[in-house]
Amino acid sequence: MFALHPRLEADSHFAADWPLCRVLVMNDARYPWLVLVPRRERATEVTELEATDRAQLIDEIARAGHLVQAFPGVAKLNIGALGNLVPQLHVHVVGRRPGDPAWPGPVWGHSAPIPYEADALVRILGAVRAG
Amino acid sequence: MFALHPRLEADSHFAADWPLCRVLVMNDARYPWLVLVPRRERATEVTELEATDRAQLIDEIARAGHLVQAFPGVAKLNIGALGNLVPQLHVHVVGRRPGDPAWPGPVWGHSAPIPYEADALVRILGAVRAG
Repeated sequence: MFALHPRLEADSHFAADWPLCRVLVMNDARYPWLVLVPRRERATEVTELEATDRAQLIDEIARAGHLVQAFPGVAKLNIGALGNLVPQLHVHVVGRRPGDPAWPGPVWGHSAPIPYEADALVRILGAVRAG
Repeated sequence: MFALHPRLEADSHFAADWPLCRVLVMNDARYPWLVLVPRRERATEVTELEATDRAQLIDEIARAGHLVQAFPGVAKLNIGALGNLVPQLHVHVVGRRPGDPAWPGPVWGHSAPIPYEADALVRILGAVRAG
């Protein structure tokens, strides 16, 4: 029984279910920012995944990376699996632009998100669902 | 022709060459912290790797993760590919302990490293070479 951690649920919008991962859009309009959550109960670390799940995970990371790289101005991907606050295994795939609020530091823990307005949210959810 | 970025060279110690990646130990005694650098010329993003290299990369991430998790007190892995400052593709695998200097935030950009003393450096290099 896979259930999304309440903190991820609160901070993001559901975009899609890919073969392994639930794909979320972080509710922060400042960055094109996807979160991949493997639908594996109680997984907290990449080291706990079976080899076939690991290979699928990195393929889905690359797929998310291509989607994020297609957003205007994205110069660098930042990919991270941290989980110090939310133990459920999840992988951030964030598009970075020189001069964005956290640049060149990491986005995690940097500053409060700026929620999406409706049209921009519909656009990024549409891009993920088409990608 | 693979060559390590001078910044990575300056900030770390060579530990081993695995099938895909050069394995470095970050010269910061506060965290068990490995860096994996795929020996692929000019790669800057996971999305540029061939599928077989991607699968190998995540296997080596898991291998590094198991090594790091074996250090005393490590409660969480932090895995990250950022590259905002050093474009050469590299993946951090960091062992985190509640109460470590950056906890629960990310280690990247947090504070100046504390270099290893000789015996602790020999110990972590030995662990990587044996693992």
